[in-house]
Amino acid sequence: MTGTMKAVAKVGARPGAELIEAPIPTPGPGEVLVKVKVSAICGTDVHIYSWDPWAQSRIKPPLIFGHEFCGTVVELGQGVKGAAVGDFVSVETHFTCGICRYCRTGRGHICEAVKIVGVDRDGCFAEYVTVPAENLWVWDTEVDPEIAAIQDPYGNAVHTALACDLVGKRVLITGVGPIGLAAVLIAKQVGALQVICTDVSPYRLEMARKMGADAAINVRDEDMAEAIHAATSGRGVDVLLEMSGSESAINGGLAALVKGGEAALLGIPARPVTIDLADAVIFKGAQLYGINGRKMFETWYQGQALLEAGLNLTSLITHRFDFTQMDEAMELMKTGQCGKIVIYPNGSDT
Amino acid sequence: MTGTMKAVAKVGARPGAELIEAPIPTPGPGEVLVKVKVSAICGTDVHIYSWDPWAQSRIKPPLIFGHEFCGTVVELGQGVKGAAVGDFVSVETHFTCGICRYCRTGRGHICEAVKIVGVDRDGCFAEYVTVPAENLWVWDTEVDPEIAAIQDPYGNAVHTALACDLVGKRVLITGVGPIGLAAVLIAKQVGALQVICTDVSPYRLEMARKMGADAAINVRDEDMAEAIHAATSGRGVDVLLEMSGSESAINGGLAALVKGGEAALLGIPARPVTIDLADAVIFKGAQLYGINGRKMFETWYQGQALLEAGLNLTSLITHRFDFTQMDEAMELMKTGQCGKIVIYPNGSDT
Amino acid sequence: MTGTMKAVAKVGARPGAELIEAPIPTPGPGEVLVKVKVSAICGTDVHIYSWDPWAQSRIKPPLIFGHEFCGTVVELGQGVKGAAVGDFVSVETHFTCGICRYCRTGRGHICEAVKIVGVDRDGCFAEYVTVPAENLWVWDTEVDPEIAAIQDPYGNAVHTALACDLVGKRVLITGVGPIGLAAVLIAKQVGALQVICTDVSPYRLEMARKMGADAAINVRDEDMAEAIHAATSGRGVDVLLEMSGSESAINGGLAALVKGGEAALLGIPARPVTIDLADAVIFKGAQLYGINGRKMFETWYQGQALLEAGLNLTSLITHRFDFTQMDEAMELMKTGQCGKIVIYPNGSDT
Amino acid sequence: MTGTMKAVAKVGARPGAELIEAPIPTPGPGEVLVKVKVSAICGTDVHIYSWDPWAQSRIKPPLIFGHEFCGTVVELGQGVKGAAVGDFVSVETHFTCGICRYCRTGRGHICEAVKIVGVDRDGCFAEYVTVPAENLWVWDTEVDPEIAAIQDPYGNAVHTALACDLVGKRVLITGVGPIGLAAVLIAKQVGALQVICTDVSPYRLEMARKMGADAAINVRDEDMAEAIHAATSGRGVDVLLEMSGSESAINGGLAALVKGGEAALLGIPARPVTIDLADAVIFKGAQLYGINGRKMFETWYQGQALLEAGLNLTSLITHRFDFTQMDEAMELMKTGQCGKIVIYPNGSDT
Repeated sequence: MTGTMKAVAKVGARPGAELIEAPIPTPGPGEVLVKVKVSAICGTDVHIYSWDPWAQSRIKPPLIFGHEFCGTVVELGQGVKGAAVGDFVSVETHFTCGICRYCRTGRGHICEAVKIVGVDRDGCFAEYVTVPAENLWVWDTEVDPEIAAIQDPYGNAVHTALACDLVGKRVLITGVGPIGLAAVLIAKQVGALQVICTDVSPYRLEMARKMGADAAINVRDEDMAEAIHAATSGRGVDVLLEMSGSESAINGGLAALVKGGEAALLGIPARPVTIDLADAVIFKGAQLYGINGRKMFETWYQGQALLEAGLNLTSLITHRFDFTQMDEAMELMKTGQCGKIVIYPNGSDT
Repeated sequence: MTGTMKAVAKVGARPGAELIEAPIPTPGPGEVLVKVKVSAICGTDVHIYSWDPWAQSRIKPPLIFGHEFCGTVVELGQGVKGAAVGDFVSVETHFTCGICRYCRTGRGHICEAVKIVGVDRDGCFAEYVTVPAENLWVWDTEVDPEIAAIQDPYGNAVHTALACDLVGKRVLITGVGPIGLAAVLIAKQVGALQVICTDVSPYRLEMARKMGADAAINVRDEDMAEAIHAATSGRGVDVLLEMSGSESAINGGLAALVKGGEAALLGIPARPVTIDLADAVIFKGAQLYGINGRKMFETWYQGQALLEAGLNLTSLITHRFDFTQMDEAMELMKTGQCGKIVIYPNGSDT
Repeated sequence: MTGTMKAVAKVGARPGAELIEAPIPTPGPGEVLVKVKVSAICGTDVHIYSWDPWAQSRIKPPLIFGHEFCGTVVELGQGVKGAAVGDFVSVETHFTCGICRYCRTGRGHICEAVKIVGVDRDGCFAEYVTVPAENLWVWDTEVDPEIAAIQDPYGNAVHTALACDLVGKRVLITGVGPIGLAAVLIAKQVGALQVICTDVSPYRLEMARKMGADAAINVRDEDMAEAIHAATSGRGVDVLLEMSGSESAINGGLAALVKGGEAALLGIPARPVTIDLADAVIFKGAQLYGINGRKMFETWYQGQALLEAGLNLTSLITHRFDFTQMDEAMELMKTGQCGKIVIYPNGSDT
Repeated sequence: MTGTMKAVAKVGARPGAELIEAPIPTPGPGEVLVKVKVSAICGTDVHIYSWDPWAQSRIKPPLIFGHEFCGTVVELGQGVKGAAVGDFVSVETHFTCGICRYCRTGRGHICEAVKIVGVDRDGCFAEYVTVPAENLWVWDTEVDPEIAAIQDPYGNAVHTALACDLVGKRVLITGVGPIGLAAVLIAKQVGALQVICTDVSPYRLEMARKMGADAAINVRDEDMAEAIHAATSGRGVDVLLEMSGSESAINGGLAALVKGGEAALLGIPARPVTIDLADAVIFKGAQLYGINGRKMFETWYQGQALLEAGLNLTSLITHRFDFTQMDEAMELMKTGQCGKIVIYPNGSDT
């Protein structure tokens, strides 16, 4: 396919983003060209937009950013198998090397040479994007395109939540941004006894409550330990799903664990954290699991099966914008007064 | 049995210990009286002897201390099953409540109301000691009594080492006191590819080398990261067995882990530790396991099976004393110039 | 407590049972006396009642039989801990030795010297029964006594169903007697994608449908392989929960498994079964788990948590009788036109 | 590369094989051309040579057969990554589709569209063979080419043996052909307490003894149950590694399992087998694992690590032939009076 397309790009080493006209890219060997239907904004995109120190060190402008999306395969590169023109797809955003030890043992989510679309190469805030065919998740059932667009954060939630057995368990979710909120839905669906959430945002705690959380604690207003003690009748929680990266949440969460408890850690602390390893982990015989990305593609199969079984992500999505409104969308992201924001290239009636 | 016996006790709230004459205790319901054959000194005993802050807060004198030992059952309390007079036994030193959730689900090692012999009730630095029959490990094969006396620390090593699959793995053991040294033997026996040890004691690193460690690094003299890098040709280690409780060892060990690596944490840090959770655990998809005591009694079965299969703990034991030499033994323990020290009530020719 | 009580007993080596007057038993050391509130009939009780070859070889009359029940602790034997007079309890019916390798490693459900109440000693078809205190499950939450009475079969279902990860899975349950029916409820509650049942009883298949099964196949009327193929769009099932002991169900179930599938086998075949091990298990890389009894007491904790989280067993219970109607109840059991039958000592208004 | 090469082929639908001259094949996209250094004969090759019913239904002549081998990469097809000309390689013989559910979840060993080199396409009884680059195992350490040639059966042994935890376990290996013999070495290296073998061939039982088996039972001469009872002092075995596919070995092995025991099943029964599922599996709470091929590539990493740690496969190889001696080699295979037979294209001094 030839011609040009609209895209939102970081064109120079400075804050902000620009709506540009760019050539439609050509898929290389093993790649496909996807016409983007809906994309979504990740916290990472806000870092890139704001041009914070992490972005400055990692991003090489010019770059079309964005990595959460769905769309339709419109062109195949050479040697593609497992996909066809017309397939409606979501995309695993971690492009793996395929030849490292991790890739060769079914653990591509910790590939030692991973490239991320929209970070290390042009991404999905565009009308078209190229991706390796092996990164496609071809939908074989009906799916709402807005749901298909947020499979990356949903997959983080699936990977984290299912790292622990939640059946009949008291589960604490620290941090209810979109991933934590998805984890609420998952935990309820797979038979958790009780789901307790903590955050500092009344907006998101209210979302958690509406999505089924049995308790939603604002740790700015309440003592975390006391509130969890009250919510669990003093029993503590069996499982911690850490989604915040906050040192106090990590410590409060580990302290609330029962003996023999499990913690899945997804949130990324900005700096080293001080932990009472003796009392919170060792004496308790607790287990901690670092979680990264999504298992390729076990997490995707699990996630789709949960959706087919009735899990409904619709309420996660609170706002819809188009490419011309990207500044507005980014500013809203910064306030935290939103769930998931989805972006339509040319407005939602496209 | 009536009469008196010799014992080493903490008789008052002050440093030191005294050789006393005490009544031979009477086993209660479900308990047995054991005639002590050999006992051994644990680091905990040195804390009690030295009367450090932990000891001051936990120990209620007068107390006969000591908890690592073997001996012969000489009297049964009411309702004992599973043991008989004449049985040669080691003793699981954690006396569990039997009715908490952990005890009722095969996890007595994290019992919420555990009592420790020689800490919470009279211990084994005596000619006789009473223990619950359910805590006995009755030897059904020949065993050297000195080996039988050190099953508590050996069991810590078995529990920690076998918390991870070591087959074909590069294993780092941080801290080679007696437990770390036993872990060296275990790792080699169960098919580890490489066993690397770190410590600050040349004496103990030399012991580690003699017991089969492929590399023994003194982290006072060498940069830990560089030395592990060199020893593993830059690959890092698959498994960390943390036996030191040292913050730098914990961080150095986690940093050396490959992606997807596992760490079993037994050493108890004296205070909270600062960890680079993002890089050392989360991005890596690493797994951390807090380890406490010994699984009752899976660890004991595993430990005995390893002994039967040829694991030889003899070289762990470096010194032998009797009750009259307890001050000398404690001072030696403080220097770290020893492996395991065993104690005979009346000299080793008893 | 002294005096006599009503009980239903096998008084001689012949079919049938008699309503007798018997002395109220006295709890031995470590035992308690339970006043029975509700009991329930198991298939095993029908074997005893009918005096079939298994019963003739195992049962030594006179014997009060029955083993599924709940009640109130009314008297404590010597040395009881963890229970008090007035506790409302269910009872784990497998009385374990406590000293074999299995008991000592948290695997009492495969104790090598187990005794079963109502089979190897007097059971619960009586106003009072004695049991070891360690076999009590003390309810700390409100529970319908009829639900408390059927924890033994419910526990079989919990143990079997949770032996496999059911999240997002297609699950086949072969045999929907009361245990299979409970498994339907459990599988739905813990997030199975699809629950497919097979049986030969229209009555029970209809119960399965009402309890949430997505498909209920009468293998007398339909070809099992074809029906499962249709129900799963040709995908097969991820998990088999085998509750029938039927050779054709075992083979049909294993044949329906996807590659890498799991099967938990609870149903007891009456004789050796012929299996296509090569195609149904080995080439597929399938895994088979033999299931016996209930994990003590992990299964009980899981089962109670599922109840607290909302699982409702009420619809499992279809009939209620008292001791004077035992013949009627047994005849109904033989027809299979029932779910669970509960028995009140003196009528349900007691 | 152009020209012709020598190869051993099934040229028509009849018993036997012929030494032919064939064109050197050209590697397709993603494939490499390997110059064969050493190959080895598998039981499957004997089926093909003998032209038994299985071979008649599966093999489409003309076909160069043979699938166990090592060699050097001499030419790269288009788009190859992870391999270079000059690499010394072994080859995973199962060529997977890469796009089925199993391939996409790290379980290529149960790929639903697998092709086997030397069975479904031309194999390694030739001077050159083409294979997908992703199937290469590039040796980064020194390795004896004869050892490199038998990684396929060695990998079967690694996969089977490491499916169970063998540390401190009593292990029964039923069937000590080359795979069973390799399992003896593995079990000993990873800390098994006892390794017991059964077979009907005195030659192979003698090999097992020399390779470290603690007991080697000829089940033609001895009662299997009694002999295992004697060898284990009545305890039975913790783990069964089934390598024979024999119905009596499967039943004898399962019967010998302790409660809670594990069985890994690799041997392929020629027809359905009759098993006492109730007593041998269900009441025991035993677990059975079907094993197929090698985990890609976890098994390969484990296997190489065991070799690096000292496992020595040399004694497995008992005979060496060249292409002109293929009939002789096949006849020897049929007698079972051999371990592994390796084949040099032009004699071992090539």
